[in-house]
Amino acid sequence: MNEALFFHAGCPVCVAAEQQFIHALDPEKYAVEVVHLGEQKDRIVQAERYGVKSVPALVIEGQPFHINFGAALADLK
Amino acid sequence: MNEALFFHAGCPVCVAAEQQFIHALDPEKYAVEVVHLGEQKDRIVQAERYGVKSVPALVIEGQPFHINFGAALADLK
Repeated sequence: MNEALFFHAGCPVCVAAEQQFIHALDPEKYAVEVVHLGEQKDRIVQAERYGVKSVPALVIEGQPFHINFGAALADLK
Repeated sequence: MNEALFFHAGCPVCVAAEQQFIHALDPEKYAVEVVHLGEQKDRIVQAERYGVKSVPALVIEGQPFHINFGAALADLK
């Protein structure tokens, strides 16, 4: 099982869409952890280490994918 | 089986990453069609109808998700 991380900042407009997106991933391949960076600011460092520049972003096997364009990480600090 | 459409414009840097992304989708839920809009300009209209503004973009069940930020559709015409 590979790790997938979904970083977001709680944008209410996006939550439904993001949920759909996460559920589209192959459950036999990926265990998805959802991280709300607004509530877990200590994990912003982790997101940055993966190359995440904005949220929502999905990290699959260490590779960041920025989805749409939401908030810059710098604005969450 | 639901339809998923992946619109791109052949950006060579992104192809590997995009392939990984497509393969992360649940194959039991989605049949993914990959559309190269640089080569199939007649499908730009379809992409726009789904609300796609830039490529690469993934449309899942009619909902567009813009991945990273590549090329604006306007630049492909």
